Amino acid sequence: MSGVTGDNPLMGGEPRVLYDIGQMRGFRPGGPVGFVPTLGYLHEGHLSLLRRAREECRVVVLSIFLNPLQFGPEEDLDLYPRDPERDLRLAREAGVDAVFVPDASEMYPEGFSTEVRVRGLEDLLEGRSRPGHFAGVATVLARLLNIVGPDRMYMGQKDAQQAVLVRRMMADLGFPARLVICPTVREEDGLAMSSRNAYLDEEERAAAAAIPRALFAARDAARRAERETGGFDAGALRALVERELRGEPLVELEYVSADEAGSLGPVGPETREVLLSCAARVGKTRLIDNVVVERLRPGAGGERKDGP
Amino acid sequence: MSGVTGDNPLMGGEPRVLYDIGQMRGFRPGGPVGFVPTLGYLHEGHLSLLRRAREECRVVVLSIFLNPLQFGPEEDLDLYPRDPERDLRLAREAGVDAVFVPDASEMYPEGFSTEVRVRGLEDLLEGRSRPGHFAGVATVLARLLNIVGPDRMYMGQKDAQQAVLVRRMMADLGFPARLVICPTVREEDGLAMSSRNAYLDEEERAAAAAIPRALFAARDAARRAERETGGFDAGALRALVERELRGEPLVELEYVSADEAGSLGPVGPETREVLLSCAARVGKTRLIDNVVVERLRPGAGGERKDGP
Repeated sequence: MSGVTGDNPLMGGEPRVLYDIGQMRGFRPGGPVGFVPTLGYLHEGHLSLLRRAREECRVVVLSIFLNPLQFGPEEDLDLYPRDPERDLRLAREAGVDAVFVPDASEMYPEGFSTEVRVRGLEDLLEGRSRPGHFAGVATVLARLLNIVGPDRMYMGQKDAQQAVLVRRMMADLGFPARLVICPTVREEDGLAMSSRNAYLDEEERAAAAAIPRALFAARDAARRAERETGGFDAGALRALVERELRGEPLVELEYVSADEAGSLGPVGPETREVLLSCAARVGKTRLIDNVVVERLRPGAGGERKDGP
Repeated sequence: MSGVTGDNPLMGGEPRVLYDIGQMRGFRPGGPVGFVPTLGYLHEGHLSLLRRAREECRVVVLSIFLNPLQFGPEEDLDLYPRDPERDLRLAREAGVDAVFVPDASEMYPEGFSTEVRVRGLEDLLEGRSRPGHFAGVATVLARLLNIVGPDRMYMGQKDAQQAVLVRRMMADLGFPARLVICPTVREEDGLAMSSRNAYLDEEERAAAAAIPRALFAARDAARRAERETGGFDAGALRALVERELRGEPLVELEYVSADEAGSLGPVGPETREVLLSCAARVGKTRLIDNVVVERLRPGAGGERKDGP
């Protein structure tokens, strides 16, 4: 009977590994499908998405595709870490039913020329540093959503702008799937899990922990200001993160920004959740991280960003 | 029992008229869905699409949405002819099961910011005359495809570039629906059916027939050249159309182009189907039309476009 398990995802066992689009479209074992799109080199962050999908859906599909469209010409596409065997082992352990592993010619056959853009959102924050990045993300996800046909798609809060932009794209183009954003998973010292952490040497790795430390310090300061003054100033939080990170010689800060978490628009008096996000280089490695600071009483005192 | 027919599209009777996206998504009576997207003001061309859908699909959905995204600021959005009551009557007569009639705020709610582009194709021919037009077409159709969820979508060959571009977009973004392109339907004197024909006064209407006459003359000349010389020259066909139309004082030619029909790329020795397309103003009305000229023996003599 054991030969059956490989064919029936709902009976556990080895995930089906699907290389082409026809196979992926044909994989319809029935029941709600949860989908976790990744670039591969899985870490605990990805696994938390897979576990959540496993809890909520009858079928779990993981895609591994190092999408060239979302890397700029000066970026680390060729260096990006890969370990397909380990990825498959982790997928099996996480109870994944199907792993979709297309190659670039399957995803972008000759003549491919469609581009999905999310105007406004694509130009902010990461978009300013990485022109074309979000068009690459939106385009590949629109394609994957149509090929995989999930009921729910799972992504991490670490890529906060990606989450906002993909939610917008899915609503605008009418994709019926629900986007589920899961909390950032962190190392013991707070560093956000990322495949790119593999680039860091020992000294850089230690220095990188200053990034979450600074963000957490700002969040703590916001909590304190709310208790003491009834509110907090988003601009002051941003300045606090900057100050903390300027003091770390191995961390080269690129930006710190405080934005309305749902829209990435400016923080105003009615803003309930402030996204405090930053990007920095540690050695040659570019890292991003963020925290969301909730306003307990939006509209109350303390927010005087544009004030005197 | 007659009250039932309105609820069950498969029993005939009045089409369901659906105004919001939730209703449209909820309309799933079962069986293959054929979808005809239109701007409204239906004519015999649209009806031919509906009839084809009716023959091939269990469920037929018509959308009527005068999509502002595909009209330029100088174009005829506000003047575009409308007759919703007549459209509904024609839809009923054509056996349509559901008519989706969203308004602009339903299709483009506040914050809408996604754009689907088909690079290369969007800039040629009509795209050169109508910047932004095809982004508007691709965006609305990606959204409609996700909302309606058809198995087949039907469009007319009159909008030849649109057909090529939408086919590309659907393949690139992985939409599972099949695109069915139906022949151009013409008036008795050859003029291609178009809602915009309603703009023409009597004299203009007579002059407009010169457009199909010129295209047909070129097609006939190609047939003759193939019989006599074994091939035809695409550039010569283009010149023939130009010459014919320059002689018609009320027709102000915008372009005539000869392109590979499947890709809109340049005609080469191996091209099997040549799309001969043109745009012209007759009075204030902009009209387009095309014919596809098949090469009986691609690679044979006659094609010396870039030759001496």
